Parts: sequence; C-alpha cells; structure tokens
Amino acid sequence: TCQFAPLSIVSSIISMQSKPDMRKVIHSIKVGIALVLVSLLYLLDPLYKQVGDNALWAIMTVVVIFEFSAGATLGKGLNRGIGTILGGGLGCLAAILADEVGGIGNIIIVGISVFVFGAAATYSRLVPSIKRRYEYGAVIFILTFNLVVVSGLRADKIIKLARERLSTICMGFAICIFINLLIFPMWASDELHNSLATRFEKLACCIEECLEEYFRIVNEKENQLSANFSSCKSVLQSKSNDESLVNFSRWEPWHGKFGFSYPWDKYQQIGDATRELAVTIVSLQGCLQYPGQPSPAIRQSIKEPCEVVGSSLVWTLRQLGGSIMKMERCRPKALMASKSHSTNIELSLVTSHSILGAAENGEGLAMASFVFLLMK
Amino acid sequence: TCQFAPLSIVSSIISMQSKPDMRKVIHSIKVGIALVLVSLLYLLDPLYKQVGDNALWAIMTVVVIFEFSAGATLGKGLNRGIGTILGGGLGCLAAILADEVGGIGNIIIVGISVFVFGAAATYSRLVPSIKRRYEYGAVIFILTFNLVVVSGLRADKIIKLARERLSTICMGFAICIFINLLIFPMWASDELHNSLATRFEKLACCIEECLEEYFRIVNEKENQLSANFSSCKSVLQSKSNDESLVNFSRWEPWHGKFGFSYPWDKYQQIGDATRELAVTIVSLQGCLQYPGQPSPAIRQSIKEPCEVVGSSLVWTLRQLGGSIMKMERCRPKALMASKSHSTNIELSLVTSHSILGAAENGEGLAMASFVFLLMK
Repeated sequence: TCQFAPLSIVSSIISMQSKPDMRKVIHSIKVGIALVLVSLLYLLDPLYKQVGDNALWAIMTVVVIFEFSAGATLGKGLNRGIGTILGGGLGCLAAILADEVGGIGNIIIVGISVFVFGAAATYSRLVPSIKRRYEYGAVIFILTFNLVVVSGLRADKIIKLARERLSTICMGFAICIFINLLIFPMWASDELHNSLATRFEKLACCIEECLEEYFRIVNEKENQLSANFSSCKSVLQSKSNDESLVNFSRWEPWHGKFGFSYPWDKYQQIGDATRELAVTIVSLQGCLQYPGQPSPAIRQSIKEPCEVVGSSLVWTLRQLGGSIMKMERCRPKALMASKSHSTNIELSLVTSHSILGAAENGEGLAMASFVFLLMK
Repeated sequence: TCQFAPLSIVSSIISMQSKPDMRKVIHSIKVGIALVLVSLLYLLDPLYKQVGDNALWAIMTVVVIFEFSAGATLGKGLNRGIGTILGGGLGCLAAILADEVGGIGNIIIVGISVFVFGAAATYSRLVPSIKRRYEYGAVIFILTFNLVVVSGLRADKIIKLARERLSTICMGFAICIFINLLIFPMWASDELHNSLATRFEKLACCIEECLEEYFRIVNEKENQLSANFSSCKSVLQSKSNDESLVNFSRWEPWHGKFGFSYPWDKYQQIGDATRELAVTIVSLQGCLQYPGQPSPAIRQSIKEPCEVVGSSLVWTLRQLGGSIMKMERCRPKALMASKSHSTNIELSLVTSHSILGAAENGEGLAMASFVFLLMK
C-alpha cells in the first residue's frame, strides 16, 4: 500500500490540468504499472532464478511496445513477435551453416549473411506498403538475425539462448496486452469513429459561421474576418492521422460495437469526402476575404436562397454526423440528397451571377459526391 | 573481395527497377556495410576481448538509429545518447539510494522509482512539443533507467557496467555517423528544398491543365474530366511530410549550400502558402466538374483575360520555383506582384459574372498572400 500512496498524489497533481489530458495520465499510470510488474522478474528471487539476465528482454519489450492505443500496442507486439521468430530462425540456420564450414570461412559466411539480410530487410522497410504496417517487424528482424548469427560464434547453446529470450519477450508482451487491454483500454477505432463523427459537426459550424459572416459585412461595411476556420483547416490536415488510426484499428480485435473485419476502408473514404468538403469551405473563406465584394444590395438579394441551402446543408451534415455516431442507417438520405439537389439548382439559377454562388455550388457538388459515397 | 561479389549482383538486380529507387538501394547497402562493421566487434577476437557481450548494445544502436536521412540519424543518435546518459545517471542514483536502505525497503524504493519515472517520462512523451523532437529520447530514458535501477540489485559493479554499455553505444553511433554522413549522404534538407521548389512547377502545371480543360469542353460539349489533379492533391497532403523533414533538417550540420541556423521555419511557411494555393486549384477543379456550366458563348467571351491571368500566374509560379531552387533573390518580384494584381483586377471586372471568376479571384488572392510571404 505504501507503494501506491505517491500514485494518487501524482495523478491528482497532473489532473489539475485540462480534461482531455486525463487519458494521457491514465496511459502514463498504466505504463508505470506495467514497468513495475515486469521489474518483478528481477526483483523477486524465485522469478530471477528462472529467467536470469534475459529479464532484460522483457523490460525492453514492455518499454518499446506499450503504445497509447490498443491497436498500436497489438500491432507492434505482433510485429515484434514475428520479427523475432523469423530473424531468430534464419539466424540459427545461418549460424549452423557457418559452424559446419568452420575456420575463416565461418567468419566470411557470417559477414556475407549479415550484409545480405540486413540490406534486403532495410530495402523492404522502405517499400510503402510494408512500411505502413510491418516496418517495426523488419527492424526487429534485422536486430534478431544479427544478434543470433553473430553470437552463434561465441555461445555454444544458441538454441537454448534463443528459446529463453523468446520466452521472456512473450512475458513482456503478455504483461503489455494484459495492462493495455484490460485496464481502461483506449481503442484507436473508438477515436477514429468519434473524430469522424464530430468532424461533420465542425464542418457544419464552419458553414454556419461563413454564411453569417458574409451577410454581416453587408451591414457593417467593414471587412474584418472574425470567423474561426482553424477547425476546418484541421479537418483538411487530418489525412495522415486518419491513416495511422485506420492502421491501428485493423489490429484491434472485436470489441464494443465493432465486429471483426469492420469496414475500416469506408472510414477512410468518408474521411476523404469530408476533406473535399473542407477544401470547398476554405475556398468559401477565400471569397469572404476578397476585397472587391459585390454591393450590399446584390448580396442582400441572394441572402434568402443562400440561407435556405446553407441551413439545409448544415442540417444534413449534422444528421449524417449523428447517424454515423450512433451507427444507424440514415433513412431519409435519398430524400435529403434530392432535396438539397433541387434547392441547389434553384439557388444556382438565382445566384449564378454572384461570386458566392460559385462556391455554394461547389459545395453542393462536394455534398453530392459525399452523399453518393455514403449511399454505397 | 569474396565478400563483395554478391554486393554487385544484388545491387544490379534491384537497380533494374525504377530510377528513384536507387537512393533506397544505396541506403540498404549502407545499412549492410554498417552492420558488417559493427559485427566485427564480435567476429574479431581482439575486439571481442575488449567489449565482451556488451557488443550487443553496439549492434542494437546501429539497427535502431540508422535512418534514411542524415538528419534523422543524427537526431535519433543524439536522442539516444542523451536518454541513455540521463536515464543511466538517475538510475545509478536511485540504485545507490536503494542500496543504502537495504532489505525489503530496497525493493520498495526500486519499485516506486520505476513507477514514478516511468509514468512521468511516458506522460512527457505525449506532450506534442516533446513528442515531435524528443520522443525517442524519452523511450530510451525509460529503458535505461529501468535496466540500471533493476540490475543494480543484482550486479555489483553497476558503474562499470554502465560505462561499458555507454562506450559500446558510442561505438555504434560513431559507425552510423561515419557511414551515413560520409558515404553518399542523403540530406533531409536537400529533399525538403527540392520538394518545395518542384511543388511550384506542379501547381503551375495544374493551373495550365485546368484552364485548358475549361476551354476544351467549350468545343467538345462533353464534360469528361481528363485533367490529372493527383499532383495537386499530393501538395495538399504534404504537411506532415514537410514537418518531419523540417525536424530532421534542424539536426543536420552545415553542409552544401545550407549554413548553420538556416531558416527552416520559412520553408514551413512557404509550404503552407503552396497548400493554400492548392486548395484554390482543387476548388477550381470543382467548378470544372459542375454539371450546369454556362453556355459556350459566355465562356468564350472570358477566354482571353483568363488565359492572360492564367499564363502570368503560371509564369510567376515557375519563376518563384526556379528562384527558390537556385536560392537567388527573385528580383522582379514586386513587379510581378503588382502586374499580376493589376491583371487580376482587370479580370475581375470582366469576369465577375462568371463562375470561374470567383475561383480565379480566389487564386489571385492566395497568390498575393503567397508573394507577400515570400517578400518577407
């Protein structure tokens, strides 16, 4: 109990910061617990007698594998396992081969095999499709292969050494999985799901602000832009984050509302559609900043249809975001699509002479392609 | 010589693929050479007698640190060094403290210190500003601290052990730096520089294609989009890549045409400006895809001014790209800016009734902000 007194102090100090940091604090505490558990291999005499200095590998595994989300941890752990087994197996073969030759040929064979396998694995690390999911495995493969081949010259019982190391790595992996998945697990898939669903709300807010802004400067005559487009820009830059989350999600097992072989690709496609819409909104912003605005009278004349189409867009976006969040089929989708399409045509007739018109139409277009994507 | 026969075969096989892969092949070969060199610590008896089993750490360092670009390697290496020294130092202190207490208190102190330092370092890993540049150092800190504290219970000569490990890590680091920086070095700064300069050319091509496309469908009446916007979209998604390259470039020493404390931030700003321009071009594409195009006659009437402003934009972009590539001050910048501005105003008068007009104006705007940035 003495051991857990500082825990509460530390966590209470850190949690005085902002709320979203709580997940980081929980993660840090989980890492601390995992480290203490794995250190027990050294600390307790009976355990140490079993594993000996190989406990080093268990600690290393925990430190390196333990990632923020469950998917990342599982992915890294499996990569490490596969890399170790492959590297160890090939390394043993090469070491035995080198041993049979003997003498100076021994060293030459070891050198050549280190060079060839190291270069080949490094090259495969740079291939984009492997890099995305198996880069860490390749690193571990190189490391293990090298260590096994090279120490084959020095250690006699290489198979025994390899088995012991593998078992300690498995121990480290088991501790990681246990702590990471059972104590407040943080699923990359949940994060992906939420970020995608709230993105619709963000975009809807942006459109609302944009329209408000446009008709506000009608009255004030002064063109100072107060609308906040940073959320829109963050949507624009979300691609790489999405990709890594989708990658992690693929590693995650069945949990909560997500089944096996959940269509993560679809998330990426919807993400692409939201980014396209964000492009349109940002260029709408460009129209707002344009110094040579049309006269207030002209803008006033297009106010009503713009607001109609704008609010229908906003409503549709919120509707879509809500249905994704709740994972329901969005029934009146076709209805909405046709409705927004007809409003859009009406609008384009009315406002085809205005500058805003173009942007709104572009928006409708992105919208249509977006609804199209969702229908699939 | 026998050792290098397979080298030429492997490289000739792999180089039969596309040309840009040559850099990857060279990198792979460099890694292979570094691995062979570091394996000599095991292979040659006199060296092995000096370092013993700690040669393991040298191999690990080479495998983990050796990255594609010089900046990434240096950054990781320095991170590893700092993390090891800090972690080792603190670990020694904690181990000595625990040793003085003795008995069961020993184990409790070790457990608490492992938990507290592990959790604190993990939390700092998640802070964005640290994560960007020092994440790897934090990982190594946790690992080293843990190993040192925990093995302090078992090994008697902990200082000696730490010194030996540190010296082998330094050996591995030296081999990495030697091979990476002296044999065909690949500078992240060069890559950043080139990618930024060629991006202008890409955008210019996109604008050209866009204009061509717009006036081509005047004649053919059919709206099938053949223009290739993937290069434009790649510019849009280049932010995270730019950021990592800028980070690596910061680690790189003086070399070639880049001095110390080169203004890498400026590169990021220019990159942001190109991305803004890319947004405008993508929304231009949106206008092209819009089904309800204005009649050919109207479009024909705006053809000439559009082409004037388009070609001047394209010319300006190529000029800017060229001057960045050659690292010259672009003299007639102010001239060009004012010229394109005046053409733009003229255009906006003529085409303010057209849909394309809006997009072109937005473009001019992004352009202006862009030139503004460059003038600084």
